[in-house]
Amino acid sequence: MAKEKKMVEQITSMEEDFAQWYTDVVLKADLIDYTSVKGCMVIKPAGYALWERIQQEVDRRFKETGVENVYLPVFIPEGLLQKEKDHVEGFAPEVAWVTHGGLNPLQERLCVRPTSETLFCDFYKNEVESYRDLPKVYNQWCSVVRWEKETRPFLRSREFLWQEGHTAHATAEEAEERTVQMLNVYANFCEEVLAIPVIKGQKSEKEKFAGAEATYTIEALMHDGKALQSGTSHNFGDGFAKAFGIQYTSKDNKLEYVHQTSWGLSTRIIGAIIMVHGDDSGLVLPPKIAPCQVMIVPVMQKKEGVLEKAAELKDKLSAYRVKVDDSDKNPGWKFAEQEMRGIPLRVEIGPRDIEANKALVVRRDTGEKIEVSLDEIDTRIGELLDTIQKDMYEKALKHREENTHVAKNWDEFLDIINNKQGFIKAMWCGETECEEAIKEETSATTRCMPFVQENLGDVCVHCGKPAHKMMYFGRAY
Amino acid sequence: MAKEKKMVEQITSMEEDFAQWYTDVVLKADLIDYTSVKGCMVIKPAGYALWERIQQEVDRRFKETGVENVYLPVFIPEGLLQKEKDHVEGFAPEVAWVTHGGLNPLQERLCVRPTSETLFCDFYKNEVESYRDLPKVYNQWCSVVRWEKETRPFLRSREFLWQEGHTAHATAEEAEERTVQMLNVYANFCEEVLAIPVIKGQKSEKEKFAGAEATYTIEALMHDGKALQSGTSHNFGDGFAKAFGIQYTSKDNKLEYVHQTSWGLSTRIIGAIIMVHGDDSGLVLPPKIAPCQVMIVPVMQKKEGVLEKAAELKDKLSAYRVKVDDSDKNPGWKFAEQEMRGIPLRVEIGPRDIEANKALVVRRDTGEKIEVSLDEIDTRIGELLDTIQKDMYEKALKHREENTHVAKNWDEFLDIINNKQGFIKAMWCGETECEEAIKEETSATTRCMPFVQENLGDVCVHCGKPAHKMMYFGRAY
Repeated sequence: MAKEKKMVEQITSMEEDFAQWYTDVVLKADLIDYTSVKGCMVIKPAGYALWERIQQEVDRRFKETGVENVYLPVFIPEGLLQKEKDHVEGFAPEVAWVTHGGLNPLQERLCVRPTSETLFCDFYKNEVESYRDLPKVYNQWCSVVRWEKETRPFLRSREFLWQEGHTAHATAEEAEERTVQMLNVYANFCEEVLAIPVIKGQKSEKEKFAGAEATYTIEALMHDGKALQSGTSHNFGDGFAKAFGIQYTSKDNKLEYVHQTSWGLSTRIIGAIIMVHGDDSGLVLPPKIAPCQVMIVPVMQKKEGVLEKAAELKDKLSAYRVKVDDSDKNPGWKFAEQEMRGIPLRVEIGPRDIEANKALVVRRDTGEKIEVSLDEIDTRIGELLDTIQKDMYEKALKHREENTHVAKNWDEFLDIINNKQGFIKAMWCGETECEEAIKEETSATTRCMPFVQENLGDVCVHCGKPAHKMMYFGRAY
Repeated sequence: MAKEKKMVEQITSMEEDFAQWYTDVVLKADLIDYTSVKGCMVIKPAGYALWERIQQEVDRRFKETGVENVYLPVFIPEGLLQKEKDHVEGFAPEVAWVTHGGLNPLQERLCVRPTSETLFCDFYKNEVESYRDLPKVYNQWCSVVRWEKETRPFLRSREFLWQEGHTAHATAEEAEERTVQMLNVYANFCEEVLAIPVIKGQKSEKEKFAGAEATYTIEALMHDGKALQSGTSHNFGDGFAKAFGIQYTSKDNKLEYVHQTSWGLSTRIIGAIIMVHGDDSGLVLPPKIAPCQVMIVPVMQKKEGVLEKAAELKDKLSAYRVKVDDSDKNPGWKFAEQEMRGIPLRVEIGPRDIEANKALVVRRDTGEKIEVSLDEIDTRIGELLDTIQKDMYEKALKHREENTHVAKNWDEFLDIINNKQGFIKAMWCGETECEEAIKEETSATTRCMPFVQENLGDVCVHCGKPAHKMMYFGRAY
């Protein structure tokens, strides 16, 4: 009991210390544990079940667009990593190097993949001969390693799980279309399933992926007003194809370079779920992603018939992901535990409820308690889950709208960054030097040039030079 | 066209050169490709789809027994690997060592996990305090690395995909029960889904897992008469618990060590599917595991109405995993291609069939051609898939029975090993020295002491000492 008590008591409030609140939730909701391997984490059953649900939903959406899954090696020979200049510069400083296999030193070092563009290029070079072999629309679910100095569970760790899609196309147009298509898959998944509204847009030259022509991103706003890059999709043009010699014979018998894309979504998105929806009682999971949607808690479960009724109720609710907590903890602890774990609905049922042919249903997101007749509980639970999903999205959207500000000049920008929180929309000149100065002065970074532009003026908010693009700025994870 | 032609022509016959036949099938059925990373392979869409089906089937069976999935780091610090003496001796010679993170040398080397017993122990040490925390029944799906000198696709590669289950229990009995339970999950999966009959039994002291008290195995017989270890389940007793200090407080408030198990099944099983069921036309997939069960091939597809009818048929067969091959290859090539890929049923439909309201259904396993009325094709396809599944199992079982021999003395043993192929059942003394001598003289190894024992005498087939156990011997992959 001592252990359970701690779980509920020790959580820091969001207002007091958001970073500590995050760490508390991640640990107390049993999502992860630290390990002896510095910067790496154990993803525990509650955390991994969430990732499995994410995988199922995302993988299904991928396959509907024609994606096929493959698996490429965990290692990249040093020579292969070096083939594309910008790419190696971006990744070499943060990879883990394997230098020995068994008892012998290797002739060539291998890095543990930080991302697999180079391996896919090496593969496509042999796979693609004719226009008939195109497009290749492959994806892999795997772990990648990046030797980060400072780590935080889900948000930044030395190893993380993700999917990385890599495609090859005959034309630049088709590659661009696929880049945007996959960004839309991510955006729809986030909004429809995770109830997280996102801004779709393009990264600046400075922030784009190492080796890409253009990087598109979805950006979400966390509860503390900081932004989180939640998924990216890159158009490589034919840069990698030229570096690796990936050519095909076209219909009119010419040798052409392929055009490539890549796109990724990682366990980082679990950090977004926590920081968008969580509250001072812990995690709050949107019903569509919750591994368990409904927890039935028998009250006075030792009384005759209570556990039987709970089991019967579980069967009745089999259209949903439902469990019965019949452990020997007392109901109060069970309630707190399930709140911590973010289960969308709790159904309390005790002897009096049974007598009155009803149950008490409690919403995790609002705490609202609703008496429901057992005759109609099946339909009502379905309606409530839909309502919660919708309400959680609306709440997150409202939070983002209330925390998105327009800065027409640098004074306004400074006022917002110093006294408010959230996104700042402003016109920007597009120059890296100016972007770096803004970051230096305010620690705000360019998040994205949204696909849906607004005209807020014609000069850069910082340097006053002509500006044609509206940029979202923000402090970010 | 040139490329497709090669695919079908170049396959070596099984009788001529089984090893070359295997390599041909693996490549021509588009399961894998070689890579620039020596000893590692690309698992291509057809191969990975097979692994995804295996994962689904196995994972569902796991979860029915209460298994929860987790994810632990890809790295093991050298000090952690060394904690259990037998274990480190078994694995240290074949691991890949990471010595640098980014630009800096590491203070302690990390190996890329060859298996994760040590990480799970390190994790359980913190997770388990009281008997209430037990059992822990966790599993992870991941890749592991073993620095093999000679590699073959699926059978032995430097990196492979697998699941590894790791459990901790309060009592030795419970651990033993779980060890056997998981072996049975593997055996049932192999027999029911993969149509591969297996022998369940115990490994010798020499062949057991490094650090285990007992290793149980399922052994299958390949078409060429060699055995393949197809899944293993280990009982660790409290050996690892003592090395890592994993203790819990029992109900009567005593400190006790936990008892542990681990069990794994890998992409190696794909090698078994190929070598048990394949033939000179390529892969033959059991319907229950085939990613595509039925391929509809339109004949004279340019004629009006043919493609429409094929699409209609696909809808009608939506209870199965069905595709239409409407590519511009000619039907002959399509037939050969689908035979190579092992698709259980082919449905041919052309203008004449449509007129006669029928289709020609062709079984991959027997080549049998069956005319089926379109009115009853849905039911007939279901029946045929069931029949194929059953027939493939029966055929594999018959092959194993015909290639399982009893040796009552050493002359018989030598006669079988030199003139026949397959399993040899014989009484064995149980001593490692004797086992090594048998291997030296015949290259046959101990496969397992089957759970179902037969009494074939009372002395060892090789050394003549008293023997109480019947052992399966065989040459093995």
